[in-house]
Amino acid sequence: MAKKSKPQSVGQTKAWKSLKSWKRSFKPDLSDPKRAELFNIKTEFAYFDYSRQLIDQKAVKALIKLAEESGLKQKIEAMFAGEKINATEGRAVLHIALRNLSGAPILVDGRDVMPEVKAVLQKIKDFSEQVVDGKRTGFTGKRFKNIVAIGIGGSYLGPEYLAEACRPYALPGMTLRFVANVDGTDFIQKTIDLNAEETLFIIISKTFTTAETMKNAETAKQWIQNKLGKHPDIIKKHFVAVSTAREKVEAFGIDPENMFGFWDWVGGRFSATSAVGGVPLSLYLGFDNFQEILRGANWMDQHFLTTPFDKNLAVLPALLDILNINFFGFKTRALLPYSQGLSKLAAHTQQVEMESNGKRVDINGKNLKYDTGEVVFGEPGTNGQHSFYQLIHQGTQIIPCDFIGFIESQYPLGESSRQEVTHHEELNTNLLAQPDALTFGKQDKEAHKNFPGLRPSSTLLLKGLDPFTAGLLLAWTEHRAATKGFIWGINSFDQFGVELGKKLGVRQRERILRFHQTGKIDTEGLNPSTSILLNALLQKKLPE
Amino acid sequence: MAKKSKPQSVGQTKAWKSLKSWKRSFKPDLSDPKRAELFNIKTEFAYFDYSRQLIDQKAVKALIKLAEESGLKQKIEAMFAGEKINATEGRAVLHIALRNLSGAPILVDGRDVMPEVKAVLQKIKDFSEQVVDGKRTGFTGKRFKNIVAIGIGGSYLGPEYLAEACRPYALPGMTLRFVANVDGTDFIQKTIDLNAEETLFIIISKTFTTAETMKNAETAKQWIQNKLGKHPDIIKKHFVAVSTAREKVEAFGIDPENMFGFWDWVGGRFSATSAVGGVPLSLYLGFDNFQEILRGANWMDQHFLTTPFDKNLAVLPALLDILNINFFGFKTRALLPYSQGLSKLAAHTQQVEMESNGKRVDINGKNLKYDTGEVVFGEPGTNGQHSFYQLIHQGTQIIPCDFIGFIESQYPLGESSRQEVTHHEELNTNLLAQPDALTFGKQDKEAHKNFPGLRPSSTLLLKGLDPFTAGLLLAWTEHRAATKGFIWGINSFDQFGVELGKKLGVRQRERILRFHQTGKIDTEGLNPSTSILLNALLQKKLPE
Repeated sequence: MAKKSKPQSVGQTKAWKSLKSWKRSFKPDLSDPKRAELFNIKTEFAYFDYSRQLIDQKAVKALIKLAEESGLKQKIEAMFAGEKINATEGRAVLHIALRNLSGAPILVDGRDVMPEVKAVLQKIKDFSEQVVDGKRTGFTGKRFKNIVAIGIGGSYLGPEYLAEACRPYALPGMTLRFVANVDGTDFIQKTIDLNAEETLFIIISKTFTTAETMKNAETAKQWIQNKLGKHPDIIKKHFVAVSTAREKVEAFGIDPENMFGFWDWVGGRFSATSAVGGVPLSLYLGFDNFQEILRGANWMDQHFLTTPFDKNLAVLPALLDILNINFFGFKTRALLPYSQGLSKLAAHTQQVEMESNGKRVDINGKNLKYDTGEVVFGEPGTNGQHSFYQLIHQGTQIIPCDFIGFIESQYPLGESSRQEVTHHEELNTNLLAQPDALTFGKQDKEAHKNFPGLRPSSTLLLKGLDPFTAGLLLAWTEHRAATKGFIWGINSFDQFGVELGKKLGVRQRERILRFHQTGKIDTEGLNPSTSILLNALLQKKLPE
Repeated sequence: MAKKSKPQSVGQTKAWKSLKSWKRSFKPDLSDPKRAELFNIKTEFAYFDYSRQLIDQKAVKALIKLAEESGLKQKIEAMFAGEKINATEGRAVLHIALRNLSGAPILVDGRDVMPEVKAVLQKIKDFSEQVVDGKRTGFTGKRFKNIVAIGIGGSYLGPEYLAEACRPYALPGMTLRFVANVDGTDFIQKTIDLNAEETLFIIISKTFTTAETMKNAETAKQWIQNKLGKHPDIIKKHFVAVSTAREKVEAFGIDPENMFGFWDWVGGRFSATSAVGGVPLSLYLGFDNFQEILRGANWMDQHFLTTPFDKNLAVLPALLDILNINFFGFKTRALLPYSQGLSKLAAHTQQVEMESNGKRVDINGKNLKYDTGEVVFGEPGTNGQHSFYQLIHQGTQIIPCDFIGFIESQYPLGESSRQEVTHHEELNTNLLAQPDALTFGKQDKEAHKNFPGLRPSSTLLLKGLDPFTAGLLLAWTEHRAATKGFIWGINSFDQFGVELGKKLGVRQRERILRFHQTGKIDTEGLNPSTSILLNALLQKKLPE
């Protein structure tokens, strides 16, 4: 193990070297019938089959060893204990506190955070129940039927994934829409058919300064004022905020009583179980269903913390990702849920994985000598089969696949008879077939009908998609990404890579404002390529 | 050039070798101010800036040479001339005929296809106008207000992309929804709020045997019969088909008069401008707007066919893709439209690129020694900036980026004043900023704030997003993918990689039916991993 003074890079560990040498001599053979029993994880709520990965028992042992040598256990415990593992920002990483249903104290700077967590949850409960019961209404006294959540990135993708996954549980007559993009198309198309009297806006921004969100919030304010008038109570009744910036929230016109807080130890992409998801989801699904989401996430949290690595649903897939990325060079992963309800899981996972682990320096600021975060993409099955699967089956690059399936359907449809299968059964014929096609391939005398096989995949099987399992999958996604970051020795909890673009964007806004003020286009300091584009945009004319 | 008898592989050409040696000595420097003028394409409808790619003039010349040596010009002309370039299936590839607005003859097997193309277009026009004018109604005499298009893959992604891109042009009161996934969730959630009397179903399947589509079609039939009764005219009035399988369409109960044909020379993923897109889009947008889509696609077709490679909007990006894939090893590409209206472009492009070029044998059936199709993924800007851009800016792998921007907004929103920018201006500050951040990066004494720069991107700028430019972008996507396939010497027009999974799926369906018939689970011949999953699904219980 590394000395305390100079932590060892994972690339220097014994396990890393033994994986390198294992890879050189490994001849994949996935035909051994014992693999299914050797390479699976059984738990109460999910079954994980990884027998189709390019592994043998030696590789799995080396991966577990890698986790141990990189200090994974201590790092996980440090996270759960509220240590400031987000070192660049000096913050704890405690999304697990948001669903710490036992209420056991978690200390940050010597202070238990749980009372505040509980207080915000209670506030969400009270508020959402008042809205749902019709005790809290719009300015004209009408019940709220439309919830419009304005937020972007972490204030959008996680809640949207959960809302979509839990749509069968929506309260009757309640709609929830998300406005994220600053492109006016997003706001207009999402509000065009809404009755303002029945519409509640939730403005979600930690700092209340996120450019896109504040632009959309201002537009929402004008939209409602155009329809209902300028009485200050209109904003107070029709707007709430999820934020930590009380003054800015008040200045916007929102009653600070209707501000739901969170904390610097909740990162954006890990905030779906905070008020960021809690407020919109409790209004849309009812507070009880939001609590089910928390319960599912909490189950995965406890599993992650307490289960040995070789039976750990979050750690083991992360180790397989590392094997695929660092030892096989497979740097893109397909996420293939056989469930329309998970249609937004890939977009959310993209943020969690690619923002967390798209890093090129380690936690000490040293340039890494090995690859980190993979690209994640995906569409629900069977849709993807009729699109990009061709490349996965017969392309020149190998894309490890994560299949996710469910025993029960969200909406049973069709007949299960001697001659007929249900929609869900038909769906699952594909879930069964695709991994086999990838693993075993098929030889054909016509070359274009050859399938090489040996294309790695895993399958995660759950009972059904409901608020509990949606929460479980959320935490699964979070912990899988964090595990990789812990092993790679990077900070998975900051995102400085988005800052430069933001800063340059602000300068472009200043140029546009100067153009409004002076009629002159200032391109000084811009490179000619950007200068040509800016000219085209301001003169509203393509370059000639 | 290669001899006729034994075509040369592109990997054996002089240009390929000179690109290999160019790459070895190339030191990227993107700071030369001349680059913006050297590396762009100006056309009436689109401006393409590729000055931020990792190229110099020598590389561009070698790429053009590569195109020439691989016989690109002849291959493009062969496609336009109706030759059977889809050799494995013995078919012509003539989606360009669908928008051949000049009507000039195109011969397949010595017969002009244009009269049939025009006849189907006329039929789409007549039918859609009758529906829109209320002359053709539902069974109870009510006007159709809801169009539900049932199709998957190529019968879904292209039309959905176009519908979303053209949504501001939708006819008042008309909705268009797509049901693709066999997961019952898709059908139920898309129809739950529709009045059957006002709902028209379009069943889109070339063979009328696509498993998912026929399952959803049968469910649609039951849905409408449950609501309106069993009179045979109900199916005749509420269902139309886009298909070539007249008998099956009739057997379903659809009036063959309401069947819109297409041809074996239109591949699924290239079918959006056939009746596959024509019927739903003409009902949703009006026939004139569908014709505008055809005009935009036709403009790009003509540009593609007649413009020298170095000024060709489709060829040049394809050559840059090849440079990135085969010479730099960047095998994933991000598609980043700064337009919410293009929110479905990435999903459509995934199919066009990854199904067309996810191939590992050349057109003669030989295993390739170089990489082909890239993974494409993306989300509309600015959403992606708050998600996966972190990896693009600071990750260890390099992802070439395609930015797409517009001078005009689809929905002008917000004020353009001395103190304020509009939503569209705010959006475009990001379009301007991101490529600069990627190209030039930023040094910082804190390592986690370092941006390495030299991350390649291109920017395509158009006037506005409307039916014409949506069609233009559709054809751009098609021809860019085809160009790569032509140069790699593969067949971009078949998709045998989807067959094995389909076949295995059918066998699983048979097993499920046998279970319904006998109550016994037959796992004979299955590998244990699949056997465990099948048991779990049929016993409705997670493995223990």
